[in-house]
Amino acid sequence: MNRSVFFISDGTGITAETLGHSLLAQFGCVTFEQYTLPYVDSFERAQQAVKKINEVATEDGCKPIIIDTIVNKEIRQVIANANGCMFDVFETFVGKLEAELGVKPANQVGKHTVDTLAYKTRIDAVHFALDNDDGARTRQYDSADIILIGVSRSGKTPTCIYLAMQFGIRAANYPLTEDDLDGECLPKALKEHKNKLFGLMIDAERLTAIRNERKANSRYASPQQCQQELRAIESIYRNENIKYLNVSEMSVEEIATRIIHLAGLKRRIN
Amino acid sequence: MNRSVFFISDGTGITAETLGHSLLAQFGCVTFEQYTLPYVDSFERAQQAVKKINEVATEDGCKPIIIDTIVNKEIRQVIANANGCMFDVFETFVGKLEAELGVKPANQVGKHTVDTLAYKTRIDAVHFALDNDDGARTRQYDSADIILIGVSRSGKTPTCIYLAMQFGIRAANYPLTEDDLDGECLPKALKEHKNKLFGLMIDAERLTAIRNERKANSRYASPQQCQQELRAIESIYRNENIKYLNVSEMSVEEIATRIIHLAGLKRRIN
Repeated sequence: MNRSVFFISDGTGITAETLGHSLLAQFGCVTFEQYTLPYVDSFERAQQAVKKINEVATEDGCKPIIIDTIVNKEIRQVIANANGCMFDVFETFVGKLEAELGVKPANQVGKHTVDTLAYKTRIDAVHFALDNDDGARTRQYDSADIILIGVSRSGKTPTCIYLAMQFGIRAANYPLTEDDLDGECLPKALKEHKNKLFGLMIDAERLTAIRNERKANSRYASPQQCQQELRAIESIYRNENIKYLNVSEMSVEEIATRIIHLAGLKRRIN
Repeated sequence: MNRSVFFISDGTGITAETLGHSLLAQFGCVTFEQYTLPYVDSFERAQQAVKKINEVATEDGCKPIIIDTIVNKEIRQVIANANGCMFDVFETFVGKLEAELGVKPANQVGKHTVDTLAYKTRIDAVHFALDNDDGARTRQYDSADIILIGVSRSGKTPTCIYLAMQFGIRAANYPLTEDDLDGECLPKALKEHKNKLFGLMIDAERLTAIRNERKANSRYASPQQCQQELRAIESIYRNENIKYLNVSEMSVEEIATRIIHLAGLKRRIN
């Protein structure tokens, strides 16, 4: 079963998409054809959106789902005339919020001013993650919030970047190499910061698949090598009493939020 | 005016937060104290959440706002008994979606299986962004979706990473240096890929402030230097007919989605 879905916003469209993806995930048996229409902030853009929705409705022979976060009522009204089934997020929630808070909503098209401090915190954290990726340097570990460790290709880099981008957290990462793993002990640079370490664990089968994408049929990607590295690193985590998480079945978002939760990290931005 | 808000989810909490932030932004005169409670996926965790909400309600002397995306009805019911004003996202939308689609929702706690292809696309794009950051190399430009150019500290790196993480887009970036700017011409490596170039522009005042954070009172951060570089780069954009965007007032999300829109880029993941 197929169904078209439009995410429509006067801003980036990210809220409409994020909410939409969560809702649609509850209907796994339906395949959704997705369209995102951002910056629908004028009557002209709204009319273009309606035209597109109506075209798709005709093609599909059934009404597209519309999930919108448009603030302006008049523009929203234009979209409401399209041949679709509309889920209007602001209409649904803002009235009840207004009643509860006893305050009028701004009803302004979604041009948020940039929070300068949060922006700086976030960009600094991204640069920190890049500068401290892959064990490139260790001298900034004093100012790290967390240091992720794990074998090569267990997901450290994307997790650090997500922690920085989404939460402003300063995350470094350090890959344990064969030397570290053979000796089953932590390198000196890490020992000094043991309270900041957090380990990533991954199933050998998944690691083999990921490494094969990178270097097919190499020793590096062989099941034996992967198993051996993972056995060794798990010993280190246990012996050194380092918290760790098996990330095999997780998205980057989930890895990041689980780590915050397990490590008791404080976000730097909300 | 202050008010406490709880974002509660059986998963990461990102959907509840994203939606919540959009809604609360409409009430700019209220300061919201935010709490995110992820992984509320058991009665025990739900009861802990209720306890926390009730404590905050007593402290504040008024009901916290609760925005939740819990799938399981019984667990949701536990939260509904807290002393708060609940905005239940799934309750609100899933019934109507069910009626429209004619399909029963899964009603399973938010454990989405990882889409392996999308995961790989995304992680590859992140590694591409890192490998091709800051003009580090140019030999992979053939496989880039876009190459961002701009002066130092105009926001290229975070934008590339966001494009990769959120949309799986392979984005490189190249800083135009004083030599390029003095000659007002593009380096050879860029000329060969002119159709992939996109320029970032920023106000001199904002650039000065950002550079001063990095190297206070340097020539690099001086208003004169910033103005001169920006004048030169704008000439290049115009003479070479390169699309560009002034990002001074934009969040990383907005820069990224505007670029997709203006450059007509295709997302690699939805």
